[in-house]
Amino acid sequence: MISTASVREDGQVVELAWKDGASARFHAMWLRDNALDDKTRSPGNGQRLVTILDIPRETVVRHAAIDGGDLAIQFGPEGKDVRFPSRWLRDHAYDRQQARSNGWLAGGVKAWTKATMQDAVPRASYADVKKSPAALARWLGAVRDHGFAVMDGLPAESGGLCKVVDLFGFIRETNYGRWFEVRAEVNPTNLAYTNLGLQAHTDNPYRDPVPTLQVLACIDNTVEGGESSVVDGFAVAEALKEESPEGFRLLSSCPARFEYAGSAGVRLRAKRPMIELGPDGEMIAIRFNNRSLAPVVDVGFDDMPAYYAAYRRFAELIEDERFEVTFRLQPGEAFIVDNTRVMHARKAFSGTGSRWLQGCYADKDGLLSTVAALEEVARA
Amino acid sequence: MISTASVREDGQVVELAWKDGASARFHAMWLRDNALDDKTRSPGNGQRLVTILDIPRETVVRHAAIDGGDLAIQFGPEGKDVRFPSRWLRDHAYDRQQARSNGWLAGGVKAWTKATMQDAVPRASYADVKKSPAALARWLGAVRDHGFAVMDGLPAESGGLCKVVDLFGFIRETNYGRWFEVRAEVNPTNLAYTNLGLQAHTDNPYRDPVPTLQVLACIDNTVEGGESSVVDGFAVAEALKEESPEGFRLLSSCPARFEYAGSAGVRLRAKRPMIELGPDGEMIAIRFNNRSLAPVVDVGFDDMPAYYAAYRRFAELIEDERFEVTFRLQPGEAFIVDNTRVMHARKAFSGTGSRWLQGCYADKDGLLSTVAALEEVARA
Repeated sequence: MISTASVREDGQVVELAWKDGASARFHAMWLRDNALDDKTRSPGNGQRLVTILDIPRETVVRHAAIDGGDLAIQFGPEGKDVRFPSRWLRDHAYDRQQARSNGWLAGGVKAWTKATMQDAVPRASYADVKKSPAALARWLGAVRDHGFAVMDGLPAESGGLCKVVDLFGFIRETNYGRWFEVRAEVNPTNLAYTNLGLQAHTDNPYRDPVPTLQVLACIDNTVEGGESSVVDGFAVAEALKEESPEGFRLLSSCPARFEYAGSAGVRLRAKRPMIELGPDGEMIAIRFNNRSLAPVVDVGFDDMPAYYAAYRRFAELIEDERFEVTFRLQPGEAFIVDNTRVMHARKAFSGTGSRWLQGCYADKDGLLSTVAALEEVARA
Repeated sequence: MISTASVREDGQVVELAWKDGASARFHAMWLRDNALDDKTRSPGNGQRLVTILDIPRETVVRHAAIDGGDLAIQFGPEGKDVRFPSRWLRDHAYDRQQARSNGWLAGGVKAWTKATMQDAVPRASYADVKKSPAALARWLGAVRDHGFAVMDGLPAESGGLCKVVDLFGFIRETNYGRWFEVRAEVNPTNLAYTNLGLQAHTDNPYRDPVPTLQVLACIDNTVEGGESSVVDGFAVAEALKEESPEGFRLLSSCPARFEYAGSAGVRLRAKRPMIELGPDGEMIAIRFNNRSLAPVVDVGFDDMPAYYAAYRRFAELIEDERFEVTFRLQPGEAFIVDNTRVMHARKAFSGTGSRWLQGCYADKDGLLSTVAALEEVARA
């Protein structure tokens, strides 16, 4: 609950204090632009009905009062009365220290290692998440927070993996199809279609936008080897930063280049860093794939040796067992990875027996939206 | 053609000079990692067969010679002989000044205004691009370079817009469907479904990844008003930077927040700046949408007045007629925009007559890949 509201700086600023001792200042212009009344925001869909150009440049707060726990404001020169709930203001306060060191992780994101994750792999059965919104919210929440999860109880048949995506969103179709086969081939267009081991990697870094989710589902698996593993790219990037701030700086401040030209008519190229930070330094994406890394040409000559040393060290850490969580997919099982964070790998497998996986891509917008909506309903 | 090749710094570096006077240095490690031989790169699909950890840390160039125009190198300690074509080395030289001021545009990207574009709108007929790879390459190339293009001669029927996307890639399905209706509704879930004018905007900035392409196709249009217009966000951002380097800095270095919660089960949120730069300062995306801008909370208190002033000025420039290119869609016509660059707007229209548009989203990866492949074939 707000305890006091004071108008400052000729109405440019309102200073609020809450009963628990917290305080925050808000600018008149910010408050006006974010007003919650039904002339500013559509009551039906919540969209803003005015543009910044509809709001007078000389907007001030004429007076501010506390009324039933709400902040009641009159804006000049419009003479417009608006109320803001105490909780809403508290949740949207921006009057705080903003500076954080590069590579910070958003709230909720939990970096993990083998020690913390090998025995705690998020897992659900398809039947459970299908019938229980709470179970679905937990499973999707694990993907949001940990960047991967396993699902079992899927039909071990072609296309069964689409059921996973149907739970929260839509398949991202690509030149590989709506989904693609991951089976050993004699003349593969992609090295994934062999029985070689694959170093931990993110998929399709040569695509912009990159597919932000990947599902890999098992239909058949009787080979020796071929286990799947996952590595938290954020945890590895944090470890690199700890050891070598300069290496972290180079991999996050120099774009890399990725390319795939494995079949006729396809010339996919992207220019993005291996470690991507938002403009405020938040760690937002990892791209790592030795197969499709193109010549890196956006690093200065003098920095190139240190860039390569950082890339090598990043690769060593990615291979370090302490980051690797391993499991063996059985028919009817699938896993999903946040392809902007969690790398996946495959152990080599023998030619006897068969191993048939299918993969598909999807995007995080739908997953994050669905879990947010489910959690909102659960809280209500 | 290379004229001289000299090994420097105990084999860490090779210095090349070309006959036209150009020169460039390359590091041994970079050359080894980017070797083009069939043990390093798969001859079939071009993917790299080795990881950085397969390459000795102490890699050097033992000797370098010019042979038939190629650079012939022996790497130690592997004793591995590799050749690089002169042209390939020239194209991938990284020994150059890297520093550019923030907001630079990639080669090929041409910022435009009404003066340069109103009478030069890129346009093609569906029949032509369908039968002529050269015409298709030109039309897709216009989208790559200018961020938009018009197509006519489409069937004026529901779903006809998918034919545009089929030319180069795949529809990005969302909670709005594979495509969506843009028709006036009485209780709209989205303000696009009214007859109000819409300020120039990019679509779905609340989605991450944002849809990077949008197609809007006209099936029926007999209303008064309702013209479409497009604005080059890169040109406007350049104008802002020119006027106010500090305003440009704030809009590009502080994340904004976007949100859409217009229907049950949908809580889409993203945190991205209005002007997005790559880590090397390249201008890579514009996000601008008054309807879905959420409270901005990632700007420091002291910077907020200047941030809002920059946002207002950016909006004013976006509304400035000198950036606006206008056209009226006829039935069977569509336009495509690069939704990471070009904003689109709609004029208000009257209630008499009817206006039926459909929209869909797609992604730039497929478009850029297709045009690159077509141009490669044309050059061959």
